[in-house]
Amino acid sequence: MSKPKIAFIGTGLMGGPMAANILKAGFPLTAWNRTASKAEELAPLGATVAMSPQQAVADADFVITMLSDGPAVASLMFDQNVAEAMKSGAVLIDMSSIKASEARDHAARLEAMGLGHLDAPVSGGTKGAEAASLAIMAGGNEEVFSSAVALLEAMGRPVRVGPHGAGQLSKLANQAIVAVTIGVVAEAMLFAEKGGADPAAIRQALKGGFADSIILQQHGERMTTGNFVPGGPSKFQLKDINNVLEEARNNGLSLPLTEQMQTRFKRFIEELDGGDKDHSGIYLELLDINGISPE
Amino acid sequence: MSKPKIAFIGTGLMGGPMAANILKAGFPLTAWNRTASKAEELAPLGATVAMSPQQAVADADFVITMLSDGPAVASLMFDQNVAEAMKSGAVLIDMSSIKASEARDHAARLEAMGLGHLDAPVSGGTKGAEAASLAIMAGGNEEVFSSAVALLEAMGRPVRVGPHGAGQLSKLANQAIVAVTIGVVAEAMLFAEKGGADPAAIRQALKGGFADSIILQQHGERMTTGNFVPGGPSKFQLKDINNVLEEARNNGLSLPLTEQMQTRFKRFIEELDGGDKDHSGIYLELLDINGISPE
Repeated sequence: MSKPKIAFIGTGLMGGPMAANILKAGFPLTAWNRTASKAEELAPLGATVAMSPQQAVADADFVITMLSDGPAVASLMFDQNVAEAMKSGAVLIDMSSIKASEARDHAARLEAMGLGHLDAPVSGGTKGAEAASLAIMAGGNEEVFSSAVALLEAMGRPVRVGPHGAGQLSKLANQAIVAVTIGVVAEAMLFAEKGGADPAAIRQALKGGFADSIILQQHGERMTTGNFVPGGPSKFQLKDINNVLEEARNNGLSLPLTEQMQTRFKRFIEELDGGDKDHSGIYLELLDINGISPE
Repeated sequence: MSKPKIAFIGTGLMGGPMAANILKAGFPLTAWNRTASKAEELAPLGATVAMSPQQAVADADFVITMLSDGPAVASLMFDQNVAEAMKSGAVLIDMSSIKASEARDHAARLEAMGLGHLDAPVSGGTKGAEAASLAIMAGGNEEVFSSAVALLEAMGRPVRVGPHGAGQLSKLANQAIVAVTIGVVAEAMLFAEKGGADPAAIRQALKGGFADSIILQQHGERMTTGNFVPGGPSKFQLKDINNVLEEARNNGLSLPLTEQMQTRFKRFIEELDGGDKDHSGIYLELLDINGISPE
């Protein structure tokens, strides 16, 4: 059986290595990106570079989008008629992180046009994208998910977590955990350092125990070495937190730890110019709370 | 080279299996415990059972204590003159979880007597003690730590994290991360469930990603199945948080996430009778905040 044809739209920091891994797994792939140079980087790996998104999707069985937010996806698919350019029965796998309500809306509109939809946002950052080890949280029809598993496995580990929108909910749950965990890792690193312990040795000592996480190891190291080059910019972290709490409000829920991090990331961005710093930069906001100047 | 002689004081739930692993590694060991029967259980493994703690330490190169708190250690070592009974140059390895300030005080007093000191609290619970897989966080002199590594390795994975007191700081940092992570995992599980996603599938999807942790997998499952049998009782979690924040205050630090969990665990214990429930029971406190009755 020949492999399905893939269109990949949005080949930036995350999408670039994801598309590269699809090519390495042997799928034929056509790429399009608003800034064309980023799509052209995939040509040496065998990608066809399209002149427009409509051209990119014309022959594709699966269209993957990796864009900044829900309005960007809607604008592309519906305002710019990319959905209309897709062939009948093709499936949009939207791997962007958008609102659950937007994902449900896109799914309904595409299904009305005879197209399939999965919301399949990811977690794992650029490292996970490069290593093809992304956590892929998929919402949608079980049969459509099954047809896409081999493709998704080229980028990471897909799990279907529920109906349309559930992938986005799962990503939001993921982002709430990430935001708060980064916050407490910052507290643990500062606490240890101020008390005269070696944060790097502590990360080593805690490895494999109840307190361990990728965030402790990776973002903890960023904090103690002062490396806040993104990675995951704080402005996107705040966008995710806002989406978590909007969705929570829609369900009548109060989430007090996530709410604290919303206030603090907002302050980090607005008062401390942290928007383009990695989200581990919340360590700088904690220093600021404590009246400590970063070294 | 013959192995150093060990005295082990406090052979209870944790100390018992730790002493047994030292015996299995071939170290000569003398045991003492306030309730004598618990020391006598080690005799079949080759332990000498002492009649008093002073007798236990008289000939030892390393004295290990595994007691309930700092005052218990001070009472034994200084009020009951056990330190005085130690031979010159011997080392106390205090594996109890006590305050960092107490550990530094004990170290200074012992060094003034010509004795060595390591604070070396552990993480990993009775399972880790039995499997000799404890995370051992050691504070103290580097040379003294090196001399003790082979002994500590009989019980788990030792890492020197800094000078006197740093082991206790590391243990407290561990406990702060655990408390806050449990809090946000509760938020993520509730958020997912209310939004119509499957919490078990979400835990599966997040496995290996940035949001993953032992707490997400183990305590997250406790929350969705409603199993709050301890485990780690909430009253001990609050004691640990109190120690973190006391030490933080001593260093002039504010730790806002840990502070929120102090307030909430206090409320869970005092108003919702949660003291003897597992710390994952903070999920019940979150339900209460949201006016939701547990099923």
